Amino acid sequence: MPSRPEADDPRLGDVSEGRVLQAILTRTPPSAHTLLGPGDDAAVIAAPSGSVVATTDTLVHGPDFRLAWSSGYDLGWKAAAVNLADVAAMGARPTALLVALAVPRDLRLSFVERLADGFRDACTALAPGCAVVGGDLTVSDVLTVAVTALGDLEGRAPVTRSGARPGDAVAVAGELGLAAQGLAVLFGRFRDGDVPVPVDPARLGPGERAALSAQLRPTPPIALGAVAATAGATAMMDISDGLALDARRMADASGVTLALDGSALGPDVDRALAGGEDHALLATFPEGALPPGFRAIGVVRARGTEELLCDGRPVDTSGWDPYRDWDSVSG
Amino acid sequence: MPSRPEADDPRLGDVSEGRVLQAILTRTPPSAHTLLGPGDDAAVIAAPSGSVVATTDTLVHGPDFRLAWSSGYDLGWKAAAVNLADVAAMGARPTALLVALAVPRDLRLSFVERLADGFRDACTALAPGCAVVGGDLTVSDVLTVAVTALGDLEGRAPVTRSGARPGDAVAVAGELGLAAQGLAVLFGRFRDGDVPVPVDPARLGPGERAALSAQLRPTPPIALGAVAATAGATAMMDISDGLALDARRMADASGVTLALDGSALGPDVDRALAGGEDHALLATFPEGALPPGFRAIGVVRARGTEELLCDGRPVDTSGWDPYRDWDSVSG
Repeated sequence: MPSRPEADDPRLGDVSEGRVLQAILTRTPPSAHTLLGPGDDAAVIAAPSGSVVATTDTLVHGPDFRLAWSSGYDLGWKAAAVNLADVAAMGARPTALLVALAVPRDLRLSFVERLADGFRDACTALAPGCAVVGGDLTVSDVLTVAVTALGDLEGRAPVTRSGARPGDAVAVAGELGLAAQGLAVLFGRFRDGDVPVPVDPARLGPGERAALSAQLRPTPPIALGAVAATAGATAMMDISDGLALDARRMADASGVTLALDGSALGPDVDRALAGGEDHALLATFPEGALPPGFRAIGVVRARGTEELLCDGRPVDTSGWDPYRDWDSVSG
Repeated sequence: MPSRPEADDPRLGDVSEGRVLQAILTRTPPSAHTLLGPGDDAAVIAAPSGSVVATTDTLVHGPDFRLAWSSGYDLGWKAAAVNLADVAAMGARPTALLVALAVPRDLRLSFVERLADGFRDACTALAPGCAVVGGDLTVSDVLTVAVTALGDLEGRAPVTRSGARPGDAVAVAGELGLAAQGLAVLFGRFRDGDVPVPVDPARLGPGERAALSAQLRPTPPIALGAVAATAGATAMMDISDGLALDARRMADASGVTLALDGSALGPDVDRALAGGEDHALLATFPEGALPPGFRAIGVVRARGTEELLCDGRPVDTSGWDPYRDWDSVSG
């Protein structure tokens, strides 16, 4: 996209909160579930089944993303996707997002416009009918995007982490380890010493592009959350910190052992187990109930000495924190 | 409160996200409206009237508060109160809060515990039955508290900003200008040059203490939001940026002129008009419908050349941004 003249693209410190929120909200279509949209003290969203599913997740520059690697569009998309996945993981359909932005004064208005485009397009692609219904804008030296997602259970009971029963199939929908592969590309190829540098697409092969896209613009299978609940899923969660750690959490919550089949985890089993941020759905189903879109990766057993097994062996469940040592790095 | 030994009060960078969230959630009682509480990918909150009111508001260290002046308890209380006020201003009853915290690594666990106490006590005092039902914790160099509040309309229609009609009474519930007076005490008395210094209560008279409390731990009349809606309020909003600016916004949204009576605004009319952060409720009512708790401060007129009058004269509506020039000040 060609740069706009500076006069058309002011720094956020030089424009009113109202203008920035307007720029966001005019770029996002109304939600099908919005009874009262932006412009008042609060929005009103339909909750026809008499309850609302609610979750919040924040992306902070530094530990969660780098502007050298993520565009505004990427950031909006990812902030939407990770929150939509949490709603889907309860078996609900996402209805609305609220976006609290804290932005450096020298950031350009066009960045926020692209952020709004990312929110809009992620909703359209992943959760049609869901949209940004409200927001808040503050100033901060650290770019921070805090999103709350709401959803409707459409009369279904919520699917928790604690309902897995011995004999159930363990299944997954979505990628395992691809987002981590994308992060490895960034860490390995687009740094100058410790400082992230912009991605040069010409240096990427097709597989690397797919991995990078999974990291920067993940596409969790949001609609399959409701499908799983309808099919009778006994437990469900989204995989944000890696299959190993999140499967252990489900095993803990349900008081069972999850026994995974390594041959179902793709060519790189370690990456599938350890890599986070794909936001795939992990679910358990009674025998014969596996719906289309989910693939079996193991079985639930009565609790043994280990919470998680892969091919009969214990699994390292220390999990995913790729930025752990990166917080002092700028970029 | 005496300091705890350091071993009992670790820095947040040295403890797991789970432990911190646990510390918050064990200190906050379950909401009466919580169908499924913390521990899963999302919470489920009752929305018996088939819709949910939702709003988000963020406090950022620097522009919105200073740790030299606000304790963790103050911060939790205020972050709850300002969001509860937005729900109340729609005529709804608050049901749940979600709290996204971004915290510096060197902050102590006890700070977050006190923050949670502030959330709990603000809900108990201002919106009984409402509680923190979910959260998210990330690391950031800038302490940031992003809160989403949900509420239930209990079968009432939402009260917007746009329904004020000529002939209605303009009324307010809550303080006007007291929080601004508290901020003036902080700015005037508790600085070393440009750097905020801790408040010494011994240096404060009773009036100053009340003003400081209104600034640090505001007590907006949350329950009166539902009361106003039941009484037939035609328009309502909370006064966050000062009566003048917010009344102008209501006049704009409704296409009317609000004519205020200066004698109803207390001894310091300028402060009542300009001072923000009290989160009083501004509402309009048909003649004779003013409910207990609200006091009349003017009348709605057909739109004239001015949106807002006080004693027949135009009012400066440039509004409230006390920290505008303070963002580079540390403390």
